[in-house]
Amino acid sequence: MQPRADFVTLGVRDTAVARAFYVDGLGWPVQQEVLGEVIFIQINHGLILSLWNRAAMAHELGAELSNGIPPFTLSHNVGSSAEVDDVLATAATAGASSIVPGTTQTWGGYAGYFADPDGFRWEICHNPTWTVDDGGGVTV
Amino acid sequence: MQPRADFVTLGVRDTAVARAFYVDGLGWPVQQEVLGEVIFIQINHGLILSLWNRAAMAHELGAELSNGIPPFTLSHNVGSSAEVDDVLATAATAGASSIVPGTTQTWGGYAGYFADPDGFRWEICHNPTWTVDDGGGVTV
Repeated sequence: MQPRADFVTLGVRDTAVARAFYVDGLGWPVQQEVLGEVIFIQINHGLILSLWNRAAMAHELGAELSNGIPPFTLSHNVGSSAEVDDVLATAATAGASSIVPGTTQTWGGYAGYFADPDGFRWEICHNPTWTVDDGGGVTV
Repeated sequence: MQPRADFVTLGVRDTAVARAFYVDGLGWPVQQEVLGEVIFIQINHGLILSLWNRAAMAHELGAELSNGIPPFTLSHNVGSSAEVDDVLATAATAGASSIVPGTTQTWGGYAGYFADPDGFRWEICHNPTWTVDDGGGVTV
């Protein structure tokens, strides 16, 4: 199995609410959508963020899905601490909640978090020892 | 905020167990590691899979993390139904559990799932209407 992920899929309670945040709020472009079922957003070259109806996900997985705060984050890296604060402010305007403000971290960087409408946490991060290229790729 | 994720971070109970599965079992290369704390694996150009100690994640998020099956999946796309079965078998050998066998799906593809040692689900998928390029990138 090659080390590769093609989709990151978040189980959302209401795709309309997820759409209001990611598409209307953050302005991310929809690649493909099945109304009320799933929204695909291309987030990287070769990586699609999928916002999938949670009940449909549970059915396909054949399992009850947990509530509460998922033990999982997505990180979005930027080039400076000021940009971290800017992105957290943008997310708040778009309707994010549970913001952890930008904070200098013990590992030397600066990062904060927001929660999307389903509680999925995004870390917004500046790590001065890592390189973010023009296309947004990170080199550790 | 650009539509981009640089890290996908899974909160794991024991990084040694996660390592045994992803690194020893699947053979994925470690980019950087802090023993007992975090393991970084480059999975795509510009995307790192981070296996992070769950207690440290909870501390940084300032929140209790949910147990049970996360409402979240990662998908790995391949070029044929036979490859789906091959990858599921590889994952089983590496120690994956809760395998949902490869099944023809209502949307026309063929997919199955495995769970990593912390219960994170990976979908292994062949969608005949999508293109997987030589580098593994998917075009919807």
